[in-house]
Amino acid sequence: MVERASREYLERVFEETKNWGRWGPEDQRGALNWITPAKRAAAAALVRDGQVVSCALELQTTPGPGNPVPAQHMMIVAGDAREASGLPGLEATNDYLGVACHGVAISHIDALCHVSVEGRMYNGFDAGLVKSIGALRNSIMAARDGVVSRGVLLDIPRLRGVGWLEPGDAILPEELAAAEHAQGSAVSEGDVLLVATGRDLRRARLGAWDATQTLAGLHPSCVPWLHARRIAALGSDGVSDPLPPNAAPGWPLPIHQCCIAGMGVHLLDNLELGRLAAACAERGRWEFLFALAPLRLERGTGSPVNPLALF
Amino acid sequence: MVERASREYLERVFEETKNWGRWGPEDQRGALNWITPAKRAAAAALVRDGQVVSCALELQTTPGPGNPVPAQHMMIVAGDAREASGLPGLEATNDYLGVACHGVAISHIDALCHVSVEGRMYNGFDAGLVKSIGALRNSIMAARDGVVSRGVLLDIPRLRGVGWLEPGDAILPEELAAAEHAQGSAVSEGDVLLVATGRDLRRARLGAWDATQTLAGLHPSCVPWLHARRIAALGSDGVSDPLPPNAAPGWPLPIHQCCIAGMGVHLLDNLELGRLAAACAERGRWEFLFALAPLRLERGTGSPVNPLALF
Amino acid sequence: MVERASREYLERVFEETKNWGRWGPEDQRGALNWITPAKRAAAAALVRDGQVVSCALELQTTPGPGNPVPAQHMMIVAGDAREASGLPGLEATNDYLGVACHGVAISHIDALCHVSVEGRMYNGFDAGLVKSIGALRNSIMAARDGVVSRGVLLDIPRLRGVGWLEPGDAILPEELAAAEHAQGSAVSEGDVLLVATGRDLRRARLGAWDATQTLAGLHPSCVPWLHARRIAALGSDGVSDPLPPNAAPGWPLPIHQCCIAGMGVHLLDNLELGRLAAACAERGRWEFLFALAPLRLERGTGSPVNPLALF
Amino acid sequence: MVERASREYLERVFEETKNWGRWGPEDQRGALNWITPAKRAAAAALVRDGQVVSCALELQTTPGPGNPVPAQHMMIVAGDAREASGLPGLEATNDYLGVACHGVAISHIDALCHVSVEGRMYNGFDAGLVKSIGALRNSIMAARDGVVSRGVLLDIPRLRGVGWLEPGDAILPEELAAAEHAQGSAVSEGDVLLVATGRDLRRARLGAWDATQTLAGLHPSCVPWLHARRIAALGSDGVSDPLPPNAAPGWPLPIHQCCIAGMGVHLLDNLELGRLAAACAERGRWEFLFALAPLRLERGTGSPVNPLALF
Repeated sequence: MVERASREYLERVFEETKNWGRWGPEDQRGALNWITPAKRAAAAALVRDGQVVSCALELQTTPGPGNPVPAQHMMIVAGDAREASGLPGLEATNDYLGVACHGVAISHIDALCHVSVEGRMYNGFDAGLVKSIGALRNSIMAARDGVVSRGVLLDIPRLRGVGWLEPGDAILPEELAAAEHAQGSAVSEGDVLLVATGRDLRRARLGAWDATQTLAGLHPSCVPWLHARRIAALGSDGVSDPLPPNAAPGWPLPIHQCCIAGMGVHLLDNLELGRLAAACAERGRWEFLFALAPLRLERGTGSPVNPLALF
Repeated sequence: MVERASREYLERVFEETKNWGRWGPEDQRGALNWITPAKRAAAAALVRDGQVVSCALELQTTPGPGNPVPAQHMMIVAGDAREASGLPGLEATNDYLGVACHGVAISHIDALCHVSVEGRMYNGFDAGLVKSIGALRNSIMAARDGVVSRGVLLDIPRLRGVGWLEPGDAILPEELAAAEHAQGSAVSEGDVLLVATGRDLRRARLGAWDATQTLAGLHPSCVPWLHARRIAALGSDGVSDPLPPNAAPGWPLPIHQCCIAGMGVHLLDNLELGRLAAACAERGRWEFLFALAPLRLERGTGSPVNPLALF
Repeated sequence: MVERASREYLERVFEETKNWGRWGPEDQRGALNWITPAKRAAAAALVRDGQVVSCALELQTTPGPGNPVPAQHMMIVAGDAREASGLPGLEATNDYLGVACHGVAISHIDALCHVSVEGRMYNGFDAGLVKSIGALRNSIMAARDGVVSRGVLLDIPRLRGVGWLEPGDAILPEELAAAEHAQGSAVSEGDVLLVATGRDLRRARLGAWDATQTLAGLHPSCVPWLHARRIAALGSDGVSDPLPPNAAPGWPLPIHQCCIAGMGVHLLDNLELGRLAAACAERGRWEFLFALAPLRLERGTGSPVNPLALF
Repeated sequence: MVERASREYLERVFEETKNWGRWGPEDQRGALNWITPAKRAAAAALVRDGQVVSCALELQTTPGPGNPVPAQHMMIVAGDAREASGLPGLEATNDYLGVACHGVAISHIDALCHVSVEGRMYNGFDAGLVKSIGALRNSIMAARDGVVSRGVLLDIPRLRGVGWLEPGDAILPEELAAAEHAQGSAVSEGDVLLVATGRDLRRARLGAWDATQTLAGLHPSCVPWLHARRIAALGSDGVSDPLPPNAAPGWPLPIHQCCIAGMGVHLLDNLELGRLAAACAERGRWEFLFALAPLRLERGTGSPVNPLALF
């Protein structure tokens, strides 16, 4: 495990980039405030050919090594439905979905209550407000009306000229800037930034690995860059932070900690960005209308999602 | 319970409106095929002011009369997270979501495997292909890349000049046409049609009632009208069918049966259309960019959703 | 709602009957300590004819008014098993059980962490030791080796010469003593005491009612009697406390509060005692070998159970 | 993978040992019929010192390699209980249990509907009677009044003079007979037979391994021996069958297939027999009163259990 950034550096960066109070003392939306109606209207104007691409993994329903907390299914099959439905003559099927929202194989959004730093959530709320009855502040309901904005994909394997980044590899801020330049797509205020590491292609070619142990992601020094760009949300085909975790005491996941608890930036974990990267490359255009809609889970700490990119 | 439509009538309508084979013998997308890239691009061009409205109910997480199959939550609260997360120094929270996808208080989409008629699903597939291991045909994966199109709201209480329709009330096809006319919004090929009955306002004013027993919805004679309009999907603040169910033997829910199993039209149940109706009335415009993204549940019979309307 | 016992009375009774420290400062077994190996051996010697009676309700698996948090089932049916099992040639079925352990229609045992009084659990442990990661003290693991002892049923409807007690009715300590006398079965140290109110027969005859609102149970003045008898556990076909709850501020469920948090007496809620009452009456004998075995749920607050009585 | 027994041999053994029709064409209890009230009374008379031993594993509540389908917990912690309970002034905690009943790390009982052979369950019932709405025949309700009888432990590691059997090892019928002889405990009609392989000690010493791949168990040639002894149920610290599975086509788990589907013998999988083996050795006595009580799950295919042995 490499120490990527020191405690002192991260404490300073956290303080310098945090958005506490920026949108008032009661704000729970954080960087989603960067998305204005005008921003959404401009994003919709990016749509040209009408192609749509999903950025989510299949939600696996069978237990297995990559699916330790599986979605449990109860199916009512057609032959049984008349008895089960209670409506005479109706042939209907049903199933049950059970997921731990932050599972390692599940495309999901992290609410701003998901991570705290030294007992404080985004905007300074006491982490103790996340109770067993749910999050009384910073729940996923902050995004209850969806996250709709301009999306920009920074395709790092493409920049580097490789198929994928190796697990554990860390992307530097210079690379983010270089990808912007190479792609001709500058990240701007209110954008949803997606960073591809090629995880999906690597899995397709080499097979699955234990993604709880090692993943490519953003070096902690990217935090000031993300802050300066005023992004509204950050997504990745990994979990944005590289794994193994950063070695500095108290700062295992600096991107999670600085984005969620400091800046109020929602994270999107375990996206599927292979289809999106192909669609962008095909068009030579790495911007699109991005839309995701978390489930309206009262007091929830996140939600499984299926984000869409529209070209 | 009034017999709204006879068995003979419904058998004939089912046959006359079914789309089996229209998009080939292996098709599983049904009327979603009406949504072309050009349709989506045109829908995106409807966006003007950038306002976004969610069409979903809060997903209630506490057991109660209106929530018989509750979402179960396991919260890891901040003080416990260091022990639970496995990552030294990380303060993170987590929860667990468990839902029966077709629950009466849950905004959800019905996959084309959800209903069959006389042992046949949409496109003639054997209903027996929905097994305890999941739906081998017509699963919700047909909508895995989202349902993005022009949305049109037909606001029936507004047409009638009332706050809401009474539970059990049935909307006639003449009213759908009259609403189109009054609103200046003709339903066209590939649209997602949303029909408001005012359920949300009634609940807010009069309190909840047992929606498994009585709801306003579309009279069975609306089926040919829906077919002629070539809608891609149909949503309602109820379940589209009125309740109590239709009395003709074998045809308790004619809208479900003809739309899902016959036409291949996905249904959206238990939406929250009060906010949308207000946004439409405010603008004098009942069309918008509509976007929903079901969870990518392999072999699933449906998904909880949070559909968005963008103006 | 009648005020059955005042706050002052209950505070005094709680103090006078609590067993904190009796078995040492680290004890988590409470009154289960009254059950010695000799007590179990003597209980086994009560067995004569070998008849066994279950004291549990069927665990309902279908949602309904009496089952707001249902057991969710995922069945793998035989035809699907070859694909699902992973073992070539094996035809196997499977299902999934999901229960909120303290559900109103579920026969279950309450762990000593289930209830606290003024922030303190049995033996004075801080209630804050029940965390979102589970109960660090007083979990159901205190009963991990089962509760096996002499069981005594006090059949109050029989004593009163009625079929059942009406919901809301409260049993007085004089009645417990009278039932002991009438039945010839004195409650003694280490016994599991079961108190029948006839709930099952009433439900069979009159139909189900909302048992979260009204139930027959023990009057708060029974607490000193229970303490004097040194019972090891207390069970009922209701929840031992009458409902509606006691009206004194802070003391809604005095039996739960004094037994679980004060005396360290595990409670058994929602038992089915109709079969047991019949078996006792048939033999003219209200004592038996009682055996229950909670699931060994680490840090759990209780467990669904199926207690057995052996004659 | 060694072929332990041929298809022809197993087909013949299955036919020769099956108990279909022995207790009538509608019987669903199978070999539990061997347990008479007199048998239970005699078993209770075995109790001398009153020591009780649990035969179940801790039910792990945290996801991990040995726990792919974890019990999910929702805790209401004490500080939150006043808001969550609905009863003013009540400080109560709660949790949620979710288990796939036949999980590899869960001590459970297999109902007679759990396994079928060539489309037939025990007593010839059509395997299709296990539907998505549950098992209409041979459900776990056959054991709804518990399994209480004489228990006999055959301690094979003790017989062989080793700490444990290696995973994959198969116990021969001669060894069962030798263990009976060495221990002075003949298995007789109606007994619950427990066979120890030392799994728990091996795990304690060497760490966990993938028990879905390899386990010690009974060689298929034990089937006639089990049949001749007229056992009522069979339990093991593994799954009774050795793993990897038997290589003969259609006969991967001969013990499961012949016991459950043929003889109607319920199996107990993944018991913890280390404590029991120690208690037996200490007393030089390998018989005891055995009691287990499955949850009364309507139409269930099994149940998690915590079996007790009483000395």
